[in-house]
Amino acid sequence: MNGAESLVHTLVNCGVEVCFTNPGTSEMHFVAALDRASGMRAILALFEGVVTGAADGYGRMTCKPAATLLHLGPGLANGLANLHNARRAATPIVNIVGDHATFHARYDAPLAADVAGFARPVSGWIHTSMSSKTVAPDGARAVQAAAQRPGQIATLILPADTAWEESDGPATPLPRLEAAPVSASTVDGIAQLLRNTKKSAILIRGAALQPRGLNAAGRIAAKTGVRLLCDTFAPRLSRGAGIVAVERIPYFAEQIVELLKDLELLVLVGAKPPVSFFAYPGKPSWCTPEGCQIHHLAHAHEDGVAGLEALAEAIGAPREPAGRAELKKPELPTGRLDAFTAGQIIAHFLPEQAIISDEAATSGLGAAMFTANAQPHDHLALTGGSIGQGLPVATGAAVACPDRKVVCLHGDGGAMYTLQSLWTQAREKLDVTTVIFANHSYAILNFELMRMGAENPGPKALSMLDLRNPELSWTELARGMGVEAVRVETTEGFSKHFADAMRHRGPRLIEVAL
Amino acid sequence: MNGAESLVHTLVNCGVEVCFTNPGTSEMHFVAALDRASGMRAILALFEGVVTGAADGYGRMTCKPAATLLHLGPGLANGLANLHNARRAATPIVNIVGDHATFHARYDAPLAADVAGFARPVSGWIHTSMSSKTVAPDGARAVQAAAQRPGQIATLILPADTAWEESDGPATPLPRLEAAPVSASTVDGIAQLLRNTKKSAILIRGAALQPRGLNAAGRIAAKTGVRLLCDTFAPRLSRGAGIVAVERIPYFAEQIVELLKDLELLVLVGAKPPVSFFAYPGKPSWCTPEGCQIHHLAHAHEDGVAGLEALAEAIGAPREPAGRAELKKPELPTGRLDAFTAGQIIAHFLPEQAIISDEAATSGLGAAMFTANAQPHDHLALTGGSIGQGLPVATGAAVACPDRKVVCLHGDGGAMYTLQSLWTQAREKLDVTTVIFANHSYAILNFELMRMGAENPGPKALSMLDLRNPELSWTELARGMGVEAVRVETTEGFSKHFADAMRHRGPRLIEVAL
Repeated sequence: MNGAESLVHTLVNCGVEVCFTNPGTSEMHFVAALDRASGMRAILALFEGVVTGAADGYGRMTCKPAATLLHLGPGLANGLANLHNARRAATPIVNIVGDHATFHARYDAPLAADVAGFARPVSGWIHTSMSSKTVAPDGARAVQAAAQRPGQIATLILPADTAWEESDGPATPLPRLEAAPVSASTVDGIAQLLRNTKKSAILIRGAALQPRGLNAAGRIAAKTGVRLLCDTFAPRLSRGAGIVAVERIPYFAEQIVELLKDLELLVLVGAKPPVSFFAYPGKPSWCTPEGCQIHHLAHAHEDGVAGLEALAEAIGAPREPAGRAELKKPELPTGRLDAFTAGQIIAHFLPEQAIISDEAATSGLGAAMFTANAQPHDHLALTGGSIGQGLPVATGAAVACPDRKVVCLHGDGGAMYTLQSLWTQAREKLDVTTVIFANHSYAILNFELMRMGAENPGPKALSMLDLRNPELSWTELARGMGVEAVRVETTEGFSKHFADAMRHRGPRLIEVAL
Repeated sequence: MNGAESLVHTLVNCGVEVCFTNPGTSEMHFVAALDRASGMRAILALFEGVVTGAADGYGRMTCKPAATLLHLGPGLANGLANLHNARRAATPIVNIVGDHATFHARYDAPLAADVAGFARPVSGWIHTSMSSKTVAPDGARAVQAAAQRPGQIATLILPADTAWEESDGPATPLPRLEAAPVSASTVDGIAQLLRNTKKSAILIRGAALQPRGLNAAGRIAAKTGVRLLCDTFAPRLSRGAGIVAVERIPYFAEQIVELLKDLELLVLVGAKPPVSFFAYPGKPSWCTPEGCQIHHLAHAHEDGVAGLEALAEAIGAPREPAGRAELKKPELPTGRLDAFTAGQIIAHFLPEQAIISDEAATSGLGAAMFTANAQPHDHLALTGGSIGQGLPVATGAAVACPDRKVVCLHGDGGAMYTLQSLWTQAREKLDVTTVIFANHSYAILNFELMRMGAENPGPKALSMLDLRNPELSWTELARGMGVEAVRVETTEGFSKHFADAMRHRGPRLIEVAL
């Protein structure tokens, strides 16, 4: 058994079942090992940003790592932007990067690069295997590192000869490192603060944004009136009918300041204090009001769900939480098709347990508003702000949850970064409906240009925000990659095609002309 | 005048005329400055790999830097793979990366990342401007650093507030750092060695692969019989009728060993000794025979052209070089359309002074063979081995040389990495004819799987090399981005459409069904 086979066996034994990949020559032994070691599904993508984004989507939905398999430094480089998003999502990923054979490194061949250097800004753990005998135990360590709480990217660099030389066989899986418990004294301290403070909020991130954690938070709110918040870009948020609703912190700093004004206590569960996404001349970066106390109930590596449940008990909260969302399906709209009517249609037809991969940016406000009372679903946001996440994350989420409908809401600008995702969706027959909001613009930048104080922008500046010349045809792009596609210009057209997509399985794309 | 305007003015004063960009919020002041400071053309791309690859193509053809403008760490990350190729090409690029305002960095907002960390593996020079007062002189230093010989990537990181705060106006350009001269004693030493050695070769890279350097090399060959070589992946090579031909070192190590066997002297002009592109079990990495002397006539930072001319004089070479290529247009083929007949057709119709951006990989052998005796042209190769270079480099070359036809020869696998290039070609009405060799496979990997010793590959392994399920339609993909496209399946069809493309200006794409 060579090193590659020992590694694949080890990964499978450690519970890694899927490898998203765009391999090259130095990864050929790993690729060959996929047949010899059963239990690992291999999914090809035609660009590495799809590989890493899919691993992110998979990890968010399964809470366990997928493996990637990337081709040397440049292959890793192409995947970095979505690894940045995954880092911000604290998604567990075993990020495997092939490299030149150990004895070849000294020759500085054309593809040689500083792989670890590329990996460092996104990785919580990096290791280069130096022998086929250590590849298997290195793989076990990578899985353990990736899956520790909160999740992180564990980059394992695999020189080609460590894959093709003889190994000592698979390694034993290492124990899973569980989340650290929240201490009773911390819970008591927060309970005391909540009792003594009128204007308080709990800002939640991570696993506590799923139903169990939200239920506990809702119980605390029922007892204390505390507001429940989540970040603008939460990695995964359960929402919709029956689930305790949280307020999503808005995008712009002045809106955040307005939301939090007069707040006296901010309790953090796996979150950081809210800050402005960008800096602007004369606008604040720090958004929590002066004098507001900030305390952690749980840090990101701690068990926020158990912490919230303990807090609910400590304050004697009722069994029934406050703030469960009701099911309120919007009527089907008529008239102009825009972000708001599109949002009504999406919320109307969204099936139970759907997964929304949301990179709709300015076009997503309607969907965000109306799906709050749609059927229960999971919402996956653009955690790191690096656009081109939505399509790959949808791809990975669909691999993770084959029985759930995935709806990808995407701006046309961002979708161009990783459009190759559609090919993988077609190849794997994934149940993803992609809605492209085609406003032919980096629309957010039109706001930002003004907000930044760049006055009287000239034609060159404006042309840098404009995607109209030439217009992209998403139906042609999708069909070019084997995905069924339609363009709609009316509310009736979108209702018809979105409803149809929700009723049938398989990838399709709907271009919404805005 | 704010920092951004002072920088744009400075860049223009330093001779930087083009900025390839995919900007975001933190770059809005730079974008606005493009209108206020005249002389800078701004070219938008929908993905950063197009930005950096286009800057590479532009730099290879003009020998001076274009600027990029990228959006924080992840925007840079998306451009790294083609910056890797540009680094291997020693292309001068002023790589400008916007970042959060200096005062915002401490808040670790979602898009914050280690920008310098991402930049380090590809940059010869990195600097973060810390004040609007220093942005302009920092820009002048970046241009000087990028343009030093050989060219390199100078990364200038631009926090948003250094762009929007008041500046002290533009900075004075710094002197251009010329190539170091080759010493007379070095020339005499090499002359002596050449006189005393029978089996010798000169391996050339860099500016000396253009007609003047090749002419001098050909004169040396006429006198001494020395063989003239270039790397498999030379950044830019002038070839075709009337130009002194050099032998291109083959791709596979055992072919290189065969080519160089019995060599007694290898003279390097701006090149490194040839090594295997990848390592393989039991195959050599180092390809120069044991006992062969290796000497530099010129290192990469030295003036190889003057060095070759001095050497020609030192050995009393004749005025007329040996080995000028003759014009031999292939007859138009009939029969099956494959890589060889396609190559004949391309060579037949290739117009004078065309620029070939070549990422045709296994499908490019025919074109490489037959264009050796086509009209004189420049050939731009995949210098760093990171696929997805060809389309962006063609884009940048067309911007650099609007009066020359650019022909981009590309494999379908590699083209998917940066297909967004086509949109920029349409938008800028660039005179690029893209030929996609659609073999629906990472064909090279089928060879590599065997060469790597991965025996009896199973269905999973083989499916990772196969792009047939579903088949990509390049005509639909191109039309989706506004580029006229046609698919051809016969030699007659390809002759007709390629000839037509050579006669008319503007972007178009021909998918060659293989």
